[in-house]
Amino acid sequence: MSTSKKKSALSEVPGVEGQSSLNPNLSKLRRQKAVVNNDQLFDGIRNGDRTSLSRAITLVESTRPEDFMLADDIVQRCLPHTGNSIRIGITGVPGVGKSTFIESFGLQWIERNHKVAVLAVDPSSAKTGGSILGDKTRMNALSQNVSAFIRPSPSAGSLGGVARKTRETIMLCEAAGYDVILVETVGVGQSEIAVKRMVDLFALLLLPGAGDELQGIKRGIMEMGDLILLNKADGGQERKAELASAEVRRALKLYPEDPRGWTVPVKPISAIENTGISDAIEEVEKYQRHMQIKGYWDQTRKDQSMWWFDDTVGELIYAHWMSEASNQKKYEDLKAAVENGTMSPLMAARKLLS
Amino acid sequence: MSTSKKKSALSEVPGVEGQSSLNPNLSKLRRQKAVVNNDQLFDGIRNGDRTSLSRAITLVESTRPEDFMLADDIVQRCLPHTGNSIRIGITGVPGVGKSTFIESFGLQWIERNHKVAVLAVDPSSAKTGGSILGDKTRMNALSQNVSAFIRPSPSAGSLGGVARKTRETIMLCEAAGYDVILVETVGVGQSEIAVKRMVDLFALLLLPGAGDELQGIKRGIMEMGDLILLNKADGGQERKAELASAEVRRALKLYPEDPRGWTVPVKPISAIENTGISDAIEEVEKYQRHMQIKGYWDQTRKDQSMWWFDDTVGELIYAHWMSEASNQKKYEDLKAAVENGTMSPLMAARKLLS
Repeated sequence: MSTSKKKSALSEVPGVEGQSSLNPNLSKLRRQKAVVNNDQLFDGIRNGDRTSLSRAITLVESTRPEDFMLADDIVQRCLPHTGNSIRIGITGVPGVGKSTFIESFGLQWIERNHKVAVLAVDPSSAKTGGSILGDKTRMNALSQNVSAFIRPSPSAGSLGGVARKTRETIMLCEAAGYDVILVETVGVGQSEIAVKRMVDLFALLLLPGAGDELQGIKRGIMEMGDLILLNKADGGQERKAELASAEVRRALKLYPEDPRGWTVPVKPISAIENTGISDAIEEVEKYQRHMQIKGYWDQTRKDQSMWWFDDTVGELIYAHWMSEASNQKKYEDLKAAVENGTMSPLMAARKLLS
Repeated sequence: MSTSKKKSALSEVPGVEGQSSLNPNLSKLRRQKAVVNNDQLFDGIRNGDRTSLSRAITLVESTRPEDFMLADDIVQRCLPHTGNSIRIGITGVPGVGKSTFIESFGLQWIERNHKVAVLAVDPSSAKTGGSILGDKTRMNALSQNVSAFIRPSPSAGSLGGVARKTRETIMLCEAAGYDVILVETVGVGQSEIAVKRMVDLFALLLLPGAGDELQGIKRGIMEMGDLILLNKADGGQERKAELASAEVRRALKLYPEDPRGWTVPVKPISAIENTGISDAIEEVEKYQRHMQIKGYWDQTRKDQSMWWFDDTVGELIYAHWMSEASNQKKYEDLKAAVENGTMSPLMAARKLLS
């Protein structure tokens, strides 16, 4: 890299204070890790080089504090080139056919001249070994397509950490020119709430089967859907899927109207036979137009950014405070007092901070 | 008060460290506020004197830091005498007949030899002037009954603050011998989540009226109900209420089973004609037996205490950190950078703590 180029790249970073003192640190880190060169990485990302994108994501996913500065730097450089995408969350219980759907859905977006990135938020995947995207062969055609980029879930960390990294990864993918971002979750936990807060539209996949078709979907997940698709409307199950769709529509009527004026479409599809997928894309585009016209599109993204900032601030302040051994000890003692019923929670909390 | 009594009362407080240094402070505060004498207050509460109970609650609700120590002390003294009650959350939109229901429900508990306390969590009441319990005449018969105690919502503060105070108030009421605690919310906001975390059972009141009877109930509230009552099954609306009950039962089937093995009863009632109220009490008792046998009753309460402790700790650590002007300033600057899109939320949060 040339010195002038490095300078100009860093001078694009409005948030980096005291550059003169920061530069030597960055240079030192770069010398230690020849593989990671943020100038090259950034150029690679902007030129759509997927190896560069992968490396930048690895940096963002790193839990080593010495990588944080480089990770922040690369995200910061990409920031002006983010936002030009549709971010879609996709959830459904295992067995609903999520990977088949994502393959079929992704390929149809590509046919319409889009570039598709597939990410995942599944903090449990590392523990269970069942990484929902670890096996790219599940999405064979999509993973071999030059306009698709598939990235499995970060392999370690708390939900908050994994989700934050996925959010930064979305930004890197956007800077690399991916304009349809699919974020997959498993539909059985808290991940959906985190994903809802990083996407523009949340799609819920269900199976037909009247009455108990929602078994396994956690309470509260159904109301999060902006688009509900009943998969496996094939092999003689078409009628069943229609009935189930009507049932879901009926159930949704029990909830209040979306304050944004959006009526959630409920559609039978077959990911395996590729039916209804085109309709689903049109519903997404209709949703985008609706939200843009009403002004919710940008506002929601801004709200999401503020939420992520405040959430992260809260978590870091807490971690910072607890990192002092004496505070940690006091916390454990008072927690025990609350647990065995000898102190009220409020009093214990006040004592901790007094 | 006698010195010996004061000593013994304080020595009952296991959480108060350094009593010798604390005693002078307490005495000083007591001299300043002759009205508030914790020994008398505690005796009064234990003897069921409602003026003492009211004063103790006022102390707990106080937002003046100089009252915190006295408030903590009185709650701490009451702590060993808490827990012997059924704590019931009651929610429903305005117009559903909550006060009529609470009056009818409360009086039937009293007929069964219980003592009933009615509290409210409504942080908005101060602003709107529409305190949901401000007007005791709404519950005329109940408020005049010697076995009932009605307390309106704390009149100021954030939801977290109001909710924490209501939680401490529950403890004071229990120490005063109230063994049925009814906590009322308005059914249109976040209060329900806070209330769900302080009660044993959450009852949801709905109106009959097929299809749109849930209008106004926030998304996610219906799944929180452990008991759902369709009120106003009277004046020719009985059939409508039956149909609406069936509709709600149908909708509930779309959700997964309660992991605790509880099937939510959905019952038509008439608070004004006093029908179905006795059934509702039996459902509550059935619920209590079920949860006690399965071991969820005590576990849930312990989990709730831990949750309140951790939630309060998080909030106080945050407030403590932000109370430094330099931190607050830095926070505002970085927040602005996130808001205008010049910095990623994660990077901004990291910079704040670096």
